[in-house]
Amino acid sequence: MAEQNFQHIIPSLQNCISDRNIMQSKLLLEELYPADIAELLQEFSVSEQKFLLDCIDNEISSSVLLELDEDERGKLLESFSAKEIAEEMIQEMDSDDAADIISELSEDKKEEVIAHIDDEEHASSIVDLLKYNEDTAGGIMAKELIKVNESWSVLTSVKEMRKQAESQELDEVYSIYVVDDKEKLLGLLNLKKLLTTSTNSQIAQVYNPKIHKVSVQEDAEDVARMMQKYDLFEVPVVDELNRLVGRITIDDVIDVITDEAEKDYQMASGISTDVDHTDSYWALTKARLPWLVIGMVGGLIGSRILQSNQDAMQEVPMLIFFVPLIAATAGNVGVQSSAIVVQGLANGSLKGENIFKNLKKELLVALITGMSLSLCILLFNIISNHANVFLVPVTISLALFAAILNASIIGTMVPLILEKKGIDPAIATGPFITTSNDILGILIYFLIAKAILGL
Amino acid sequence: MAEQNFQHIIPSLQNCISDRNIMQSKLLLEELYPADIAELLQEFSVSEQKFLLDCIDNEISSSVLLELDEDERGKLLESFSAKEIAEEMIQEMDSDDAADIISELSEDKKEEVIAHIDDEEHASSIVDLLKYNEDTAGGIMAKELIKVNESWSVLTSVKEMRKQAESQELDEVYSIYVVDDKEKLLGLLNLKKLLTTSTNSQIAQVYNPKIHKVSVQEDAEDVARMMQKYDLFEVPVVDELNRLVGRITIDDVIDVITDEAEKDYQMASGISTDVDHTDSYWALTKARLPWLVIGMVGGLIGSRILQSNQDAMQEVPMLIFFVPLIAATAGNVGVQSSAIVVQGLANGSLKGENIFKNLKKELLVALITGMSLSLCILLFNIISNHANVFLVPVTISLALFAAILNASIIGTMVPLILEKKGIDPAIATGPFITTSNDILGILIYFLIAKAILGL
Repeated sequence: MAEQNFQHIIPSLQNCISDRNIMQSKLLLEELYPADIAELLQEFSVSEQKFLLDCIDNEISSSVLLELDEDERGKLLESFSAKEIAEEMIQEMDSDDAADIISELSEDKKEEVIAHIDDEEHASSIVDLLKYNEDTAGGIMAKELIKVNESWSVLTSVKEMRKQAESQELDEVYSIYVVDDKEKLLGLLNLKKLLTTSTNSQIAQVYNPKIHKVSVQEDAEDVARMMQKYDLFEVPVVDELNRLVGRITIDDVIDVITDEAEKDYQMASGISTDVDHTDSYWALTKARLPWLVIGMVGGLIGSRILQSNQDAMQEVPMLIFFVPLIAATAGNVGVQSSAIVVQGLANGSLKGENIFKNLKKELLVALITGMSLSLCILLFNIISNHANVFLVPVTISLALFAAILNASIIGTMVPLILEKKGIDPAIATGPFITTSNDILGILIYFLIAKAILGL
Repeated sequence: MAEQNFQHIIPSLQNCISDRNIMQSKLLLEELYPADIAELLQEFSVSEQKFLLDCIDNEISSSVLLELDEDERGKLLESFSAKEIAEEMIQEMDSDDAADIISELSEDKKEEVIAHIDDEEHASSIVDLLKYNEDTAGGIMAKELIKVNESWSVLTSVKEMRKQAESQELDEVYSIYVVDDKEKLLGLLNLKKLLTTSTNSQIAQVYNPKIHKVSVQEDAEDVARMMQKYDLFEVPVVDELNRLVGRITIDDVIDVITDEAEKDYQMASGISTDVDHTDSYWALTKARLPWLVIGMVGGLIGSRILQSNQDAMQEVPMLIFFVPLIAATAGNVGVQSSAIVVQGLANGSLKGENIFKNLKKELLVALITGMSLSLCILLFNIISNHANVFLVPVTISLALFAAILNASIIGTMVPLILEKKGIDPAIATGPFITTSNDILGILIYFLIAKAILGL
């Protein structure tokens, strides 16, 4: 029930398009939710998409537009004139969505579209929002909101709220903000209070002053984290003078949270930013090749290290066999260590000041895992080699131990250092950390072998 | 502003605890939000935590309890009697939170706590909820909600809503559900409608019948995906007869979404389920060791393959040098391919039926990356080896190409097959896929070397 598949409508829509049957298209599509229409549109060409959107009400088609992928939307909007975009789409959207769409247009078209917005208040809200960086609270907030003055009575407030809801074409009202005469944010009036207070009480007596708020400059990810931490559905945004300028709802923030998580996951898997299986093979290749090249360069360095240790390998051939094991284990440990740190930094539970405490714990983990794995390999090698070359198994196990210890230190430190330098620590996971630990593992291996076996 | 650090209060609280100063503790803590108090409590021992919670109002301490980690909460609750848990904590919670907390208790304590809940309706709601699996809609829904009958007038509805909000101690009201005489869900009354309709209109004329709903049995992750897709703040839950039995709010669902994303990320990094940097070194070791053992076993198999190809390596020593490069590249490609599929499956954009289409695109990507990387290595080897052994560089590049192709097929197919078999495809990323591709890469390498060089 939660999700349905509407693919079966495609043939009927195809027929509608070839017959130019506007009424039938409208009937078929308006049964669905905008997010579903957006999904269906992916199966059609741009000109077919435009035909279908033109069939349905502007209120619905503007919602559909918001649900499309940015790429997809970009292509589609090129087939609309600035006037059409302004009057059919932007007019129907909340200011934050409208600003998002407009910010994706080319500079020329941007101005043209804004010039075509009839509703002056709407236009000025959008222009206001376009000033903010999209990664800040200002960049994700909407200007439409319901506010009441502390000096009003509950009855006056209800009347005013009604007016505001109608004039702003707000679909849903979740929070009612309380401001003073200077528009400064004082608190929140919750719906329950509104329902349960006598109509002539004054707002000043019933509002809740203990509320969360954010400043327009606040980082969007911090806002997301805060709303998640405190379970907030909506948070007011204030300017430097504590004046109420907008509000951020949880649906805007969920996208920030999941985008962030997807980005970290892709980085860890060696895929640079923002592709998915629906992208073209070329986009996928471009996102993946750089990481593979890093891995290849690492592999070439590894081959040089092996080459320069050719004599040692000729003298003790058994050394060769454990190169992949040591490289792979070092790589795996490095990824594990860095993932723990990156995740802690991403969800805000790990702060820079805890570096030392973390490194200590990580070293303890590395000591335990290193010792247990090295002992296993030692036993395995002694048994399977009938203990006739005791020093070689000892060398291998010691090297494994050292490589694990080294990988966990690097895996812990690198993301912490990157974070301190203001670089996204997530790039320290995946192929980058695997590759560097591969190489270091091999290097450590031969250094220890030479020292112990005197090669 | 979004997040503050309250660590500076710790010393004052320490003093309060040693002086047993209840009033001062209450003053200090009640300034903060429950989520912040929960964070602070981590710095105290269990008996200190109990002292502090006893100082503050039950309404706040019960919220704090909900914000704690499950482990932390478990330890703390052991120091409370069943009567205290029921009367101080459970009584103040919404039914869904109460059921979550109770489900974490031991069987004996569970019954004792339920027996101590005075409010019979609350107790029966909780017992109802405990029947549902925690991964279903029923397991995350709350029973408290506001509903109006379609036959009521707006005025009657407002009065009834007031009563319901008071009797259920609802903090916030976001949605008003419309039902018929048999409690069957008909639709939703939005607040804007309520504000803008005359008070003697009948609900049947103003409610919105086009709404999303889920059944109690629905998978929690599907509910989360649906609420995210359609930007829903709240969704009603119905039983088999379409009777309204509860509601799920977006804050419950955000946790499902982020838990899922964190789990996938950890799997990809070779960490089994649900640890973070705050866990003990022992928990961290236990979560990581199994994956490292998989990698080690893979390494040992790799060493056997090298051992059995000892003659070939002695005849053409150059072959050895490229073992790490081929193994690492195969591993990287495997992780990339599987990550794309796992992510598509996780966010619901990739369906089982698209297997063939995806494999085709993935093969195309593999062909391009494989060819470019192999050509680079071929050129590099020819130049750096003065082209005196042309066949060896060709062998290496061909093996690299084959390993990349193989890794991308495996990386694409394995998660799809796991998903079909009902196994979490995320386990197919990380060390598992790296290791298997490492081994297969080495195997392919020597097979091709033997075939071409006739070793």
